[in-house]
Amino acid sequence: MAGEKVVSSKTIYKGRIINLRVDTVEEPDGKPATREIVEHGDCIAVVPIDREGNILMVKQYRHATGRELLEIPAGGVEPGEDIEMAVRREMSEETGFSPATVQRIGGFYSSPGFCTEYLHLFIATDLEPNRLEAEDTASIELIKIKPEALEDLISSETICDAKSIAGICTYLRMQA
Amino acid sequence: MAGEKVVSSKTIYKGRIINLRVDTVEEPDGKPATREIVEHGDCIAVVPIDREGNILMVKQYRHATGRELLEIPAGGVEPGEDIEMAVRREMSEETGFSPATVQRIGGFYSSPGFCTEYLHLFIATDLEPNRLEAEDTASIELIKIKPEALEDLISSETICDAKSIAGICTYLRMQA
Repeated sequence: MAGEKVVSSKTIYKGRIINLRVDTVEEPDGKPATREIVEHGDCIAVVPIDREGNILMVKQYRHATGRELLEIPAGGVEPGEDIEMAVRREMSEETGFSPATVQRIGGFYSSPGFCTEYLHLFIATDLEPNRLEAEDTASIELIKIKPEALEDLISSETICDAKSIAGICTYLRMQA
Repeated sequence: MAGEKVVSSKTIYKGRIINLRVDTVEEPDGKPATREIVEHGDCIAVVPIDREGNILMVKQYRHATGRELLEIPAGGVEPGEDIEMAVRREMSEETGFSPATVQRIGGFYSSPGFCTEYLHLFIATDLEPNRLEAEDTASIELIKIKPEALEDLISSETICDAKSIAGICTYLRMQA
């Protein structure tokens, strides 16, 4: 199947985390259509496993949702930054632990219908405490989850974040 | 942990699928901060299982990603529409099948860092062909996936869409 030819493109907003543009495209059958596109840089998400086999998650208030969410650590890859370095940096900033070992286990778009964001998924093991680098411990709470508790937390929608569910499930499948 | 007090809110864009607003908030410690928020209505995503146990997926070009993606059927809940009706409607429109049985199996935010979208996850079974209602068969290709092929398709990032991975994994966990 062919792609869509861009007839015109209008930048609506250039921001800190996202840009918004509206493209007018021509569908394969020639019909014109409008595509609202949120531009968002690549991100990493990481399933951190401690020496006891617990998964480390972060609890933080998310203004878009109006509530606190329990998520795996994640964040943007900075311009020019190596993806694996981004994993190590986010681990230090959000959890206060540095992983000796990181391994890429997958990747996915978060919202391909309207957003360019791709998340690179990693697991992090052999964690060493590194509290001095923790960025923002006032607004992020670190929570250790036993692996046997994960199923219930997902089915009850206590863990209700797509990247966290996709990441945890990918990790659990590797263990099976 | 307290939420964030909204000091001011500015609507940047009101569109067809999304709106964009920028809020100035006060963090719990009193620091001002900017939050870019993409407003997106609730959605459904559905794992359709045919009588042979295959999962039905749709392949379509996604302009935001510049490529075709393999996804589980999904779409917006229309204003005033019952969520289960939205599942049945999207199934008819995207796959040409009507499910006799739909069951809610979870839910999640797609990108809680900046977007309000919540996806309600269902499985659909007892599928009956209903080709006449198929909306847009020119741009959506229906693909049957055998369950034993799913692991490889996810680990190779051939299936690289967060809602599809979260949905398929949730379904596979129910089978285990």
